Amino acid sequence: MSLEGFRPPFYLGVDLGGTNIKSGVVDNDGLPLSSVSRPTEADRGPEVGLSHLVDAAERAVDASGIGWNQIRGVGLGSPGTMDIHKGLLLDPPNLPGWTNWPIRDKLAERLKCSTILENDANAAAYGEYWVGAGRGTSSLVMFTLGTGIGCGIVENGKIVQGRHSHGGECGHLIIQMEDGRLCSCGQYGHLEAYASATALVKRALEALEEHEPSSLRANLANGSLTAHAINLAASEGDLLALRLMRETARYLGVGATSLMHTIDPDIIVFGGGMIGAGLPFLEQIRSVVQQIAFPLPSKETRIEFAQLGGDAGFIGAAGCARMSFGKS
Amino acid sequence: MSLEGFRPPFYLGVDLGGTNIKSGVVDNDGLPLSSVSRPTEADRGPEVGLSHLVDAAERAVDASGIGWNQIRGVGLGSPGTMDIHKGLLLDPPNLPGWTNWPIRDKLAERLKCSTILENDANAAAYGEYWVGAGRGTSSLVMFTLGTGIGCGIVENGKIVQGRHSHGGECGHLIIQMEDGRLCSCGQYGHLEAYASATALVKRALEALEEHEPSSLRANLANGSLTAHAINLAASEGDLLALRLMRETARYLGVGATSLMHTIDPDIIVFGGGMIGAGLPFLEQIRSVVQQIAFPLPSKETRIEFAQLGGDAGFIGAAGCARMSFGKS
Repeated sequence: MSLEGFRPPFYLGVDLGGTNIKSGVVDNDGLPLSSVSRPTEADRGPEVGLSHLVDAAERAVDASGIGWNQIRGVGLGSPGTMDIHKGLLLDPPNLPGWTNWPIRDKLAERLKCSTILENDANAAAYGEYWVGAGRGTSSLVMFTLGTGIGCGIVENGKIVQGRHSHGGECGHLIIQMEDGRLCSCGQYGHLEAYASATALVKRALEALEEHEPSSLRANLANGSLTAHAINLAASEGDLLALRLMRETARYLGVGATSLMHTIDPDIIVFGGGMIGAGLPFLEQIRSVVQQIAFPLPSKETRIEFAQLGGDAGFIGAAGCARMSFGKS
Repeated sequence: MSLEGFRPPFYLGVDLGGTNIKSGVVDNDGLPLSSVSRPTEADRGPEVGLSHLVDAAERAVDASGIGWNQIRGVGLGSPGTMDIHKGLLLDPPNLPGWTNWPIRDKLAERLKCSTILENDANAAAYGEYWVGAGRGTSSLVMFTLGTGIGCGIVENGKIVQGRHSHGGECGHLIIQMEDGRLCSCGQYGHLEAYASATALVKRALEALEEHEPSSLRANLANGSLTAHAINLAASEGDLLALRLMRETARYLGVGATSLMHTIDPDIIVFGGGMIGAGLPFLEQIRSVVQQIAFPLPSKETRIEFAQLGGDAGFIGAAGCARMSFGKS
């Protein structure tokens, strides 16, 4: 491919997920030159996973048209738990068996390139901050709405990593301390337990068990009761689905408001599969925030959908490498 | 006084409250050389208030034994709402009538000294971070438990001021989104509505109205039902008071946990009048956090009482001036 329009130096971003690895070369302005995807096969353990990471990285560099000698650094985004500073995975639920594993140094050694580790949700937030919905801002909070709720915080241009690499774990904000729903983490009342795709489906199931009339009963019968199906039913006017989506927006508005009273960022960004619900859903979140946040932030804080889709992770990881290795 | 043991340059800290102004000169290591207190007479308007600010500042410098020419800058902590960057009070509830008032530049002009404005709770948090309970850490969250709940966040050595000067307003975290208590700000379910001294007294009143047996009934009768009285009754074994204090600790543990999942600081500090409740109260908060926070932060994050008492505000404000003007 032509390198025209791209600006060196270049960085390699790698987004490690429990199912897939996405990797791409990114230029100094955050433009991706390539993007490849490989399976993780996480359950085969970290050494097999490492070979897939290396494979994804090499294919991304091959596809980019530049050589390794032009890659200034590698950014690796991974699910936690981790010790970011030590470059260590601790006990990641989505990578079972990758326990106390020095993933950063292992990858650096194989790629023979300076590598940094970042939490995957933090990396995605940084990607949106750098070249996505938050471009030009100085602080951003991003929620990624999927099976769980990932979150990353960029404050004054820097990721809030936290003392124990637990910064920005805002899916686990407590929004309901009395009789709160059980979260996947084992605690109660967390945002994720109310507003993730999983939680949405669970709430739909509960409502159907209460015999609420809904077209979703057909989905239940044929095993297709997903967040997507619920959103589709809402867009077709199903009353239960509409209520479920409205409640989800309210929960997210509550979470966003607590972040506006804590970080008070320029922009709050929602990404992940559930934003397929589209503008009406975003407007509902905005409306909740306008009702319950402090007057000034509620008026001025931008509430937007993410723009980079599934590329936010590797672009952001490359951006993190740029922050670490760019000023040499 | 002797200047021995103090290290230049020096800064003047001013802590403006709705009732009193506290001011002192602080050395480069955060040691106060002087401390004076003056009434604010906030209801007489900002010009009268300004003359009291100037008076407090001059008395603090007089008492310090150094001259104005040795003061490198002034830090002013004030209640909000404000625009920190513009040095402007917007519409502060505790300073009625001081609306859209350029307090920073007014004070700088009168004192003929570089001045910065900071939110009072942020300044207090910075004081504790600099030379109090958080000395030697790199990130801190502080809750000040009084009539309301003030909060300040220091992350990576810097105050999280927020885009609209609403950073660290964590008294207004939503901890109970369904049927939450009414907060002084007009919204519902905020931490402050459950765990401030005011909220504690209100919950006591509600319990007494429900005819719960308690020695607090005598306090109610003679008009002395205060947070202090409730804590005293708890220390004497009154069952209702014990429950109220335990619940307060739980609410604070919930708030602390949400901050540990957001900022993940080195230390969370509680200050303000209510910490008179002493170590048993702190242990209760710690115990809640240990039960509901993520394993690693719950084990490692320090939960402590503040150490600077009522001096945190002016010492922290001086520290903010040091950050702004110290590197010349």
